[in-house]
Amino acid sequence: MNRHPKITLVGAGPGDTDLISLKGLKTLATADVVLYDALVNEELLDYAPKHALRIFVGKRASHHTFSQLEINRMMVELAQTNGHVVRLKGGDPFVFGRGGEELDYAAENNVPTAVVPGISSAIALAGLQGVPLTYRGISESFWVITGATTAGSVSNDIHVAARTDATVVVLMGLNKLSEIARIYQEAGRGKLPVAVIQNGSLPDEKTALGTMDSIVDEARARQIGAPAVIIIGEVVAKHGQYALKQSQEEAIAV
Amino acid sequence: MNRHPKITLVGAGPGDTDLISLKGLKTLATADVVLYDALVNEELLDYAPKHALRIFVGKRASHHTFSQLEINRMMVELAQTNGHVVRLKGGDPFVFGRGGEELDYAAENNVPTAVVPGISSAIALAGLQGVPLTYRGISESFWVITGATTAGSVSNDIHVAARTDATVVVLMGLNKLSEIARIYQEAGRGKLPVAVIQNGSLPDEKTALGTMDSIVDEARARQIGAPAVIIIGEVVAKHGQYALKQSQEEAIAV
Repeated sequence: MNRHPKITLVGAGPGDTDLISLKGLKTLATADVVLYDALVNEELLDYAPKHALRIFVGKRASHHTFSQLEINRMMVELAQTNGHVVRLKGGDPFVFGRGGEELDYAAENNVPTAVVPGISSAIALAGLQGVPLTYRGISESFWVITGATTAGSVSNDIHVAARTDATVVVLMGLNKLSEIARIYQEAGRGKLPVAVIQNGSLPDEKTALGTMDSIVDEARARQIGAPAVIIIGEVVAKHGQYALKQSQEEAIAV
Repeated sequence: MNRHPKITLVGAGPGDTDLISLKGLKTLATADVVLYDALVNEELLDYAPKHALRIFVGKRASHHTFSQLEINRMMVELAQTNGHVVRLKGGDPFVFGRGGEELDYAAENNVPTAVVPGISSAIALAGLQGVPLTYRGISESFWVITGATTAGSVSNDIHVAARTDATVVVLMGLNKLSEIARIYQEAGRGKLPVAVIQNGSLPDEKTALGTMDSIVDEARARQIGAPAVIIIGEVVAKHGQYALKQSQEEAIAV
């Protein structure tokens, strides 16, 4: 075999195939193997050469789910047998993508690695709807937190964040939404604007807008499911439909 | 005039021209005017049509600097006279890019807008050096904070962040580095790993690695200048050169 083993972690972006980087596309075009996740748009696989193996390693109901260790092993073994393995991951490889563990495993096995960053849904999905994560005089920072901690509970970071002016973005947190709302309500911030976006950047995108007091009902009414991003902060009021929605609610309340 | 006025905010990515999205390139190809910032790689302007006006509106020593209001006005007026204005911004348009103010001004003047997200240096520059912003068991979140607040002082968010386990990324904060280091030291975290990256993703990229106790000297020794990104947290120890560097320092200290 005279192929050089190599692993490149590539961020596929938030879903829209045009939101991958040019470098991501060029890298895919040199793949001998593509290992891709559930959040990756499968149309991107067309950019890989014909001979490249395309292997789905994501989590999906009714499929066998690979453990992270199994993925790490496949990645290294396929690099050693087939050459260039592109590990194609939704969003950016290092935003809760476990890309760090994959780099570590490759290094332990002496396989050279490279990284192509991606557009993270943490930043892009708000922006695509006209919600700026930062805005002079409103928010000097944004804090991106996982809803799926190793321990299974809501991250302590969310408790701290609820008492700051940071815009907060929670990924993989939809099933914790009511708990997150309660944390903000207990911090006296029930009126804070929130958006929940499912399948952002794709044709079937769905959005629920509300306040911490109303968002659980809003998300349920609009049948929002995973994968979804939760965006919390005064900047959400910049959404084109937010003011209208709130004034309707107040009218109903009267 | 038969052109339809339109403004699209496009994120140019962190510097490497291949780190713009495919959608960003396609949008540039339809520009009648490109208004671009100092942090944008000028090679990207080649993707705009020949007829397109290319106007630099960034801040540079010895140039007249446009105020945000002047930029907003040019953007709207040029859309009305020339058609499609692409507002090309470094990184992502909404990560401290004042993109929100531009959207608001366009809406007040009834010019339709669109947004093409970009790869933010806040996320990408760590990743390109193999530093994952999040890592299971180390960091459940990352917090992106501006070093250049409206008030001119270090953001209060940094004081709060210094007492959490969040990975912290500070943009535009190089001239506040010693103050930030002091805040962390006062929080008892002088040993926390830090990286400072100048011109990340470009051929002249420079990096300083150290701890909160040593980073000011390290950045000075390596003559790091703006624009630079500061990355703070245990994940920085994942950098390929970090362990080596720390062991050398300990050897010297002995």
